[in-house]
Formats: sequence, C-alpha cells, structure tokens
Amino acid sequence: MASRKQDASGSRLPGQDARIARRRPIDLAALNDHLGYSIRRLQIWIFQDFIRSLAEVDIRPAQYSVLVVIGANAGLSQADLAESLGIERARMVHLLDRLEQRGLIERQPSSIDRRSHALHLTKDGQRLLKRAKALAASHEERLSGMLGETARLNLLDLMRRTVLPSA
Amino acid sequence: MASRKQDASGSRLPGQDARIARRRPIDLAALNDHLGYSIRRLQIWIFQDFIRSLAEVDIRPAQYSVLVVIGANAGLSQADLAESLGIERARMVHLLDRLEQRGLIERQPSSIDRRSHALHLTKDGQRLLKRAKALAASHEERLSGMLGETARLNLLDLMRRTVLPSA
Repeated sequence: MASRKQDASGSRLPGQDARIARRRPIDLAALNDHLGYSIRRLQIWIFQDFIRSLAEVDIRPAQYSVLVVIGANAGLSQADLAESLGIERARMVHLLDRLEQRGLIERQPSSIDRRSHALHLTKDGQRLLKRAKALAASHEERLSGMLGETARLNLLDLMRRTVLPSA
Repeated sequence: MASRKQDASGSRLPGQDARIARRRPIDLAALNDHLGYSIRRLQIWIFQDFIRSLAEVDIRPAQYSVLVVIGANAGLSQADLAESLGIERARMVHLLDRLEQRGLIERQPSSIDRRSHALHLTKDGQRLLKRAKALAASHEERLSGMLGETARLNLLDLMRRTVLPSA
C-alpha cells in the first residue's frame, strides 16, 4: 500500500521549498474512521500478499476459490458455484474458460440435468491445488503473525456471524 | 451476498429429484478459514450497504474518499491524492474528471508547482459532501449495530496498526 514518506528535514517554514511543501502529511482522519475504507485497504493488502505467495503456481484469489470449491464439491454446476462464491455469471464463465484452457478443470455433461455441466478437477488440477493449498497456508500463517492469531480468529468469527453464506 | 437456500423438505434420497439434488449444500469450509476470502465478502457487503446509503447523493465509495480527502486537504495535488488513497493514476484521472463534470471539484493552477493542479471542492461540492457525510454516518451506525461496537472498534484499531498509511 502507498504510505506517505515523511519529510526527514523536521522543521518546515512557509514557502521554504515547493517540493517539501507538497509533501506535507495528508489528513486521512475522516476516512480512517470508516470501516469500509479500512477493510478495503486491508483486503487489497491481503490479496497482494496472496498473489505473491501463489506466484509459483500462477493462481489468483478468485481462481483459488474456484479450484477449492470444485475440489470439495466435485460435479457441482456452474450456477451453484457462481452463487456460492457471489461471483456474477459472466465473470464465472471467463474464470472457468481460463482454468479449462490451462487443463486444470473439466466441464462434463451433468447426469442430473442435461442443461448444465458438472465441474471437476483434472489430475493436473488436483496436483496444482495441493501445492496451491500449501502456499496459501504459508500466506495465512504470515497474516497470523502480522495481525496476531487472536485478531485473525476474531475476524474469522465475525465474518461467520455476519455476512458469510451458511454452507 | 448470495446465501444458499436450504432445501426445506429435509430428508432426501439419491436420484429423488434433479432440482433438489442440485441444491445440496455446498462445502465452503476450506475457504471460510481464509482471512482474505472472508474479508473480501465482508468488504463487498459493506460497500453495497454504503452505495445504498448514499444513493440519494449518487456517490460511490471511491468518490466519497476523494471528496473527503480534498475537503480536508484543500489545494493538494492529484499525485498526492492518488498516492494517499492507493488509487492508480489513470483511475484517479477518470474519478476526478467525473467529479469535475458534476461541478463538485475544481482543478486550479498550483501556486507551488506549475506542473501540477491544486484540487478544491466547489461550493456545490462542499454542500454535497456535508450531506454525504451525514448519510455515511448512518451507514456506519448500522454497521456498528450489526457487528457490535466493540468488534467495529477492534477492526479499526487492527487496520491502523497494520496496513493503513500513517497520515
């Protein structure tokens, strides 16, 4: 995240120097009291760390969610997957196309509904997901170290009690 | 947020009915333990509530942040604004164009650096921001009621200690 570099010179006089004057600390107090703003910045920070952590397998957060849910719910439909993750249909189609092109998932004809496809991981997808989960676990450990394990558990508990879908 | 509708019929037999079979609960356990996933869903939920709360003034979260920061830091530059909010340059230009077209902000020649503009709220911008702040405060109160005030303060404290820029 962008963080303001403080002017190292200490004292500062009016009109002293244009470049220093432009670097005066910016007042963000009115935003920092907003939960939405704070959470958005924390979320971006966490996603950036996640992307770095999984760079080796080239898997981004939404792709990871999709692989994990297909892995735990083999044969589920595209519509159910989209609904459970709160991802809109058009974006989900694009996500699945990309994972299919990479040979990580398969769309098979559904045995229970001819209008839909049943989603499965391929062997390669299973192998990659296993490695991705290990990398995601290290990322989660790093977060835990940064936030404190109590804060991390409190946050997770808060989400479960409020906005997460009851699975 | 999408939440799974549970099948009300209770018991269920294999092959009983395709539509019921498709509605089996989806296992999201492996995702719910991930802080990034939980925070992303909470953040989306909060932004949706914010957008509804400020519908009357037609101001979205990023626009609100921009107006608040210009309001508290009259004359700051586009570059400093973008950096302080962690918004990339191209997106910031687009955001400011839109607010200028609506007559809410002005770009004035900077007195300290001829290459940059100094940002100011117009009279209309000041009036609208005042109303927007009142609506945002109701939104924040609703969050506080939903999460619990202690949880809200803990979250804000956590953000301040970790990822927020020191202003």
